[in-house]
This record gives sequence, C-alpha cells and structure tokens, in this order.
Amino acid sequence: MSVNLTEPNILLPVKGVRLSSLAAGIKKNQSNDLVLIELAENSQCTAVFTQNKFCAAPVTVAKKHLQVTMPRYLLINSGNANAGTGERGMQDALSTCSLVARQSGCKTEEVLPFSTGVIGENLPLNKIEAIIPELHEQLLDDNWIDAGRGIMTTDTKLKAISRQIEIQDKTVTVTGISKGAGMIQPNMATMLSYIATDAAIEKNLLQQCLKSAVGVSFNAITVDSDTSTNDACVLMATAQAGNDVINQHNADYVKLLNVISEVSLYLAQAIIRDAEGATKFVAIQVNAANSTDDARQVAYTVAHSPLVKTALFASDPNWGRILAAVGRAGVDFDINKIQIFLNDVCIVSNGARDTAYTEEQGQKVMSQQEITIRIELQTGEKSACIWTSDLSYDYVKINSEYRS
Amino acid sequence: MSVNLTEPNILLPVKGVRLSSLAAGIKKNQSNDLVLIELAENSQCTAVFTQNKFCAAPVTVAKKHLQVTMPRYLLINSGNANAGTGERGMQDALSTCSLVARQSGCKTEEVLPFSTGVIGENLPLNKIEAIIPELHEQLLDDNWIDAGRGIMTTDTKLKAISRQIEIQDKTVTVTGISKGAGMIQPNMATMLSYIATDAAIEKNLLQQCLKSAVGVSFNAITVDSDTSTNDACVLMATAQAGNDVINQHNADYVKLLNVISEVSLYLAQAIIRDAEGATKFVAIQVNAANSTDDARQVAYTVAHSPLVKTALFASDPNWGRILAAVGRAGVDFDINKIQIFLNDVCIVSNGARDTAYTEEQGQKVMSQQEITIRIELQTGEKSACIWTSDLSYDYVKINSEYRS
Repeated sequence: MSVNLTEPNILLPVKGVRLSSLAAGIKKNQSNDLVLIELAENSQCTAVFTQNKFCAAPVTVAKKHLQVTMPRYLLINSGNANAGTGERGMQDALSTCSLVARQSGCKTEEVLPFSTGVIGENLPLNKIEAIIPELHEQLLDDNWIDAGRGIMTTDTKLKAISRQIEIQDKTVTVTGISKGAGMIQPNMATMLSYIATDAAIEKNLLQQCLKSAVGVSFNAITVDSDTSTNDACVLMATAQAGNDVINQHNADYVKLLNVISEVSLYLAQAIIRDAEGATKFVAIQVNAANSTDDARQVAYTVAHSPLVKTALFASDPNWGRILAAVGRAGVDFDINKIQIFLNDVCIVSNGARDTAYTEEQGQKVMSQQEITIRIELQTGEKSACIWTSDLSYDYVKINSEYRS
Repeated sequence: MSVNLTEPNILLPVKGVRLSSLAAGIKKNQSNDLVLIELAENSQCTAVFTQNKFCAAPVTVAKKHLQVTMPRYLLINSGNANAGTGERGMQDALSTCSLVARQSGCKTEEVLPFSTGVIGENLPLNKIEAIIPELHEQLLDDNWIDAGRGIMTTDTKLKAISRQIEIQDKTVTVTGISKGAGMIQPNMATMLSYIATDAAIEKNLLQQCLKSAVGVSFNAITVDSDTSTNDACVLMATAQAGNDVINQHNADYVKLLNVISEVSLYLAQAIIRDAEGATKFVAIQVNAANSTDDARQVAYTVAHSPLVKTALFASDPNWGRILAAVGRAGVDFDINKIQIFLNDVCIVSNGARDTAYTEEQGQKVMSQQEITIRIELQTGEKSACIWTSDLSYDYVKINSEYRS
C-alpha cells in the first residue's frame, strides 16, 4: 500500500561510488539487510543526523568519524537499530567499522556505520563479520537498486531517483535512495537517505547544500510526530564528473543545489507516499503567517492531529477538525480573517463555514488520494509547506504487530 | 468498550440544584440531548473553558454572562457543538438563553449555554424552543443520572460520582457528571463537566478551588492531543448545606478542596477509561525533573506518541518506543542516568535496557489493563502525572465513521 509511488526501473551509477548488498541474516525474512557503499579517494561527504537525545550508537560513531576524516566506506544494516544498547552498542558499532577497515585496508575512522530496525537489541556481530568479505568483493558501480532495497524495513516500495544536469559542459549525475516508513518527523526520523553526485564541490558548500535541501524536504515531512533514534541523511560528492571544483555561490552551485533539492524532495515525499498505512498524500500549506515558525507550527499541529488524520482516512470533509487543530496551534491570528481551503475549495472564512461551501465540494476533494489543505492566516507574509499521511487501520495494525 | 469503568447506581441530590433531561431531536438516535440545570438563588458558580482560539459560540456567550452576573440556569445540548458557526452561531447561543429566561422568568444573562457534538452545523433552534417548556417543568433534584446521560456523545458509559463530607457538623454533598470521549487534551477538550455542592463558599475561593482541582485532573489527561472548541468545567455551590460561608484558606476550605479534587480526578480518569477505542488506562508518572513543566512535557510526549500508544494497544513491551519518545521531548537530562519503569519493572537504566530486565517481565506488565509508565529523569525534584489511553483499531473506526 502506497500513494502514487512508482519504483524506478533504473538508477544511474555515480562515478566514484560502488555499492553492494547482501543478506546477513539480521532481518528474519532472509532479505538483504547489509549494504556497503564505497567512495573514491578525494570524495567529500557530509551528513545530518537525528536530534533525539537517545540517538543510536552508530549515529554517535558516524558523527565522530566525520569530524576526524573523510569516509571511504559507509556500512548500513537494516533489521536492527543498535539503539538503546548502551556501551555495548557503541563497541559493536565501532567493531563493524573495524571489520570493514580490515577488509578494505582503510582506517576504522574512514568507515561510517548506520543502523535501522528494532531498538534495544544487540547487533549480531558474528553474522556481519562472516559476510563482510563477500560484501566487499561484490562492490559494483551499478548496484544502487539493490542497495536501496537493502536498507528497507517496513517500506513497501523502493524509494530512489536519479537525475542528470550539465555543469561546465560536463554531465553531472545525482542518485539517491532512502527508507521510511514510520516514526517520521521533522529533524529526521526512522529514515536513512544516501545521495551521491560525481560533481566536484568544496566541503563547506556541500554542507550548506545538504542543509538547504534537507530543510525543505526531509525536515518538512511527518507521519506520526515520532522522531527516531537513527535518522541520517548523507550527501556524497566524488569529484569525478570533470567539472572544476565548485567553491563559491555561483550559478553552478545553484544548479547543483536545485537538483539535489529536487532529489531530496522526491525521496522525502516518497517516504510519506509509503508511510505506514498511508492511503492519502497530504500537503499542508500555510500562508500569510507572521513567521516561518508560526506557519510550520500551524502546519504541524494540523498534520499531527489524529482527528484530522482519521477524517482524511475516511475521506470525510470534517473541516471542523481542521479548524479546531488550527485553533489550538498556539499561533496568533484573527479567527474572523483566516481562510482554510481544501485544494481550491474554500471551507472556512469569517470565523465559520464559508457561505458558498457545500458538503459535495468537500467530499469531492477528500475522496482524492492527493489533497492540499491550505490555511491563509492573514497576519503576515511567511509560508511553509509540510507533507503528511493519514491515520488508517493499517497504521495501527503495522505498529501493533511490528515485533510479533 | 471502556477500561474498568463502572456506572454509578445512585447519585446524591445537591440541595439547591434541580435538573431535567429530554430528547429534543438534536441527536439522530433519539436519545436525550438537552439538559437544564437550575441553581437556587444566592448560589455561586465558576467555570474554566477551552483555550482553543476557535472556541464555540456558547463558550463565548457563557464567559460573557459569567462576567455580568451569577447564573440561575445552565442549558446544555449534545449532538451539535455550535462551533465554527460564526455570527449566526453567536445569535443562536444567545437565543437559547433567551428561551430559558422567558420560560423561567430570569434574565438572559442568568443563563449559561453549553454545546457538544459535531462542529460546523447550525443549532436546530426550533427543536430546542419546542421542548423548553417541558424541560423546565420536569426539573427535579434527583435527576443527576438522566442529566449525566443527556450530555453524552460518543461516551459509552455514564461518568458521574457523588461524595459527602462533614463541614462544621453539616453534611456537604458534592455530585459531578462529565462527558468525553475523544479530542481530549490539557486545557480542556471535548469534555463538559458539571460539579455541584451545597456548601457555602465565597466566590473567589470557589474559583481557586476549581482551578486547583482542574490542574491535577482535567488538565492532566490526554487521549489524542486534540483540544476541542467547546470544553468547559463548571463548579457550582448553592450554600444550602447550612455551613457558615467559607471565606478563607482554613481547614474547611481544604476539606472541600480535597473532595472536589477527588471528584474531578474521578471524572477526568473516567473520561480516559472511556476514551474512544481505549483498551488500556495508562498513567505516565515523571519524577525527579528540573521543573513541573519539564515533567509534563516528557509525560505528554510519551502520551501522544502514536508508536507508544499502538505498542500499548498490542500489549507489546516495545520499550524502545518509550525511550525514543522521552529522547525527543526537548527536555534536558543525562541519558546515562535516566531510569524508566513499567509498573515496578525497570526497563531502562545506564542509557540502555536494564541488565536485569527480561521480555517476560515487560510482557506481564503490558498485558494488564492498567499500566504505569514511570520515568525518573534524575535532574531535579519536580514531578507530574498524566493519564492517557492507547491507540486501537476502534479509535480509528470511531473517528472515521463519526459523521457517516
């Protein structure tokens, strides 16, 4: 079950990136659960991580390693989050890095570990150790689809995309993969995302690029307000496309930023389209706010309201629930001026149901799979848009039965 | 479906209070939907209301009337919230007061209106007008159970309680009724609550008494984080028990405060026990926090987490979800010092699963209907406790089908 999400048939290799994916037996269902990504020498890499205080051991280790040196390898396992595992978890995360380092001849600090899956269980180190040689041996540049599948947990579909642009007459490729699918909230969630380009770009600019792209994509989605302990989004640049290194905010930077933002937004929205139990893909657009924070606050209050989410699931134009959520957002506005729209249908104006509104109009919008709830606060000039899903029987089912 | 909630067989009349309840046809199912409460002259009355900016018309009118004079009548309808109805809704709320005033010979301002039910539809004034004479005629002091049933919407059980204490050798009675059952959050929700006593107490003290009682009861519960547009809690004192007027913080005040707090807590917990789709009654106790706000913030973050709520529904000791919710609460603590307990079973210590913890222990607690999640932050000396329910298939079902 997912909302208008199509798996890609093909993903373009990125020069300087090789990948492999195998089943180490961490997941119970025998599907691939271990992914290795190799970056060519002289690649740049930057990442953003979960802001949950209980961040997982691999997050702590990956942050430290990124401060010390540039990574050559990323090792990602699904099926086990290595979170809530204390000191032992930290040792295990480091051990996985050592295993990769030993196999490939790099330093332990040149390996970044990532984990996603059940919290609170120790990593099966022996299973990982046993398969590292084969994993290393199978590294290929044309292996993005397998890698994308290898990081999935409750995802029902592969989330991945490739784009190409020209920079200085050189073809630059951007390919990204990500996984969801619950515990999705601003400031990262149960999501992992890996985006690589062969463009040459200076490290600080790469960081800025990731921060900008994440702000309007991965940090603008929510499934259930739960922030996971393991989220990470990694942006890698191998400098093998042949362009001169981008080292200032010029037209080339903007071009690259735009394509990376596009890839990030596609992947973020793909996570929502494949959210646990999702039957609707919903944009919440808040306009004319005093500040971006106000706009986001209103959007998230509506997006997190279980009553709005169940009304969306029921295709019920129960606009009173939207109005009640806006009213409790804690943001200043005049209830007589605010307007609320379902797509282009005005449902609320002058502090009440719009006089021209009919239930049929609302019903028509709500029965669609993709819906925009637009709220015009009429207090200022700032806007924000966030994307979310509905709350269905299947959300409850998936999350009640996840461990059983 | 409710969790260990028993309907009372008997409710004690409160001298100076008469009530009636009839079916005006506002609800589709022909059950009682209109309640009239009459207060004897010289009664005191105080109330707290929803903080939702989109508060319903009757809330606005009731607040105004309370500022002008002491009420003699409260008119409560279920089945229609008269919220999101703009200027027309305001006129309708006033009209219901006028109808009662005309029938009883009091002033319009001496009537408080209350509504609960679907948002955004206009009140059927003609149906209310037609039944007011009979409603007035049927006023009786021994009618609390009918009144309690008349304010119910999706509630499956009557929520009501009576208590008696002695003050100055006089028997003082306190009787209260309330209704839930979704859209329940701090600072009032879809709930209405009416508590009456025949004690004599000065108005300001009555206000303080209500504020104290509500703080640890109605404002310490949450079903789904949604705050309704219509919530109100009313405390009435008729001064007919024969005690000298309580006009200072003496032992009599404390005695009365305690019993009113007890009644409030019972009614608030009854709302959670009968929350939409509830199969569990869960206390979230946060101790050793830097501030009460910190403690409440952590408790609410856990209580609102859909992943914690679905784990509770599944009786799954998925403690990682509790840990992840605590970690994203935005409150300062040391992850290596914090402890988390399911009832008396320690599940988290030293930043990881407690070494003595076994899945069997957790399973045993989680399979119970009443569960306490206790979080020891180890940063200070403040505490807070809030009560919540789980997130079940039936919550989704009830809220997807509410209007159909």
